[in-house]
Amino acid sequence: MHIKPEIRILAIDDSALIAEQVMIVGVIFRGGDWLDGVLRSEITRDGTDATVKVSEMVTTTRHYPQIRVIMLDGVTYGGFNVIDITELHSMTGLPVIVVMRTMPDMGRIGDALRNLPCFEKRWQAIQNAGGIHEVDVHDGAGSVFIQCAGIEVADARKIVRLGATHSHIPEPLRVAHLIATGIVCGESRGQA
Amino acid sequence: MHIKPEIRILAIDDSALIAEQVMIVGVIFRGGDWLDGVLRSEITRDGTDATVKVSEMVTTTRHYPQIRVIMLDGVTYGGFNVIDITELHSMTGLPVIVVMRTMPDMGRIGDALRNLPCFEKRWQAIQNAGGIHEVDVHDGAGSVFIQCAGIEVADARKIVRLGATHSHIPEPLRVAHLIATGIVCGESRGQA
Repeated sequence: MHIKPEIRILAIDDSALIAEQVMIVGVIFRGGDWLDGVLRSEITRDGTDATVKVSEMVTTTRHYPQIRVIMLDGVTYGGFNVIDITELHSMTGLPVIVVMRTMPDMGRIGDALRNLPCFEKRWQAIQNAGGIHEVDVHDGAGSVFIQCAGIEVADARKIVRLGATHSHIPEPLRVAHLIATGIVCGESRGQA
Repeated sequence: MHIKPEIRILAIDDSALIAEQVMIVGVIFRGGDWLDGVLRSEITRDGTDATVKVSEMVTTTRHYPQIRVIMLDGVTYGGFNVIDITELHSMTGLPVIVVMRTMPDMGRIGDALRNLPCFEKRWQAIQNAGGIHEVDVHDGAGSVFIQCAGIEVADARKIVRLGATHSHIPEPLRVAHLIATGIVCGESRGQA
């Protein structure tokens, strides 16, 4: 995969759980450098509509033809509304990279999902995210963990490193987080 | 005034007029380079609370001690809710720079304000924004117009040029606009 420095990345984060409908924010970034656009949608708290809603957000924006990769902050949005990244990849035709600050605790996630309807479907979506790979973002100064769909791990690593301009979290995800928390809470929290 | 490349700028834009309360978005930027935080508040459409609401947004954020300048996109927000920049300067203790893409049509603004309550107060706020100065942002490739409070025009020019990294509009204002329209309309519009 040829990765240009200004590769268009669509990164998505969710906001605080203050209502049944949870706002999700998409940002279109040029590499790790600058913001091209902002998208907003809603998903159901602890629901099962995140994959479809994110897919709609991606394919209906005027930026869709330019977007080369989707970046997610984990696979559970709006509580335990799980995004199935293999399904998201096939619905959008775009590679998906999931970024996590720490190794997910699969036992804890499984226990939480068991208390919700559609356990099998949610657990399958978790499984579909596939193997977890560590990425050394800044040559030993910080690492994140990734999962991928529709892209080689080596290419995903390059994109994560390219995007991480101001912290060890890729800039598009950091900015999506600042916007989502700032808009819903009145002031943004944390750095990513 | 000593202007560091990473001077903290708080830029504010409003969103589309779809309700009585209009969302305003503040972004804290490091120079023209990267996003440090996002703030959200509301003002009344065609009301007279913009100066107080913006002042509150500025002074209550945890970023307040770092902010060195406030940047506005014109002085009318949420329809014709006029920000009095001399008052905003004295309420916040911070310099204010108003940026406009074109020369404002004072006759047209005056006519519109005459149809609203508190005409004298609004018109006085418009007058208080003071003289209008053209700034050549990219050495002949694009210019904007500015008004200032609490800052020398020469310093304001430097900050506007420093901030205009990706277009002739300073990046903090461009990003505030993308966020405000993206969140309210579902997808951001235009570049600034």
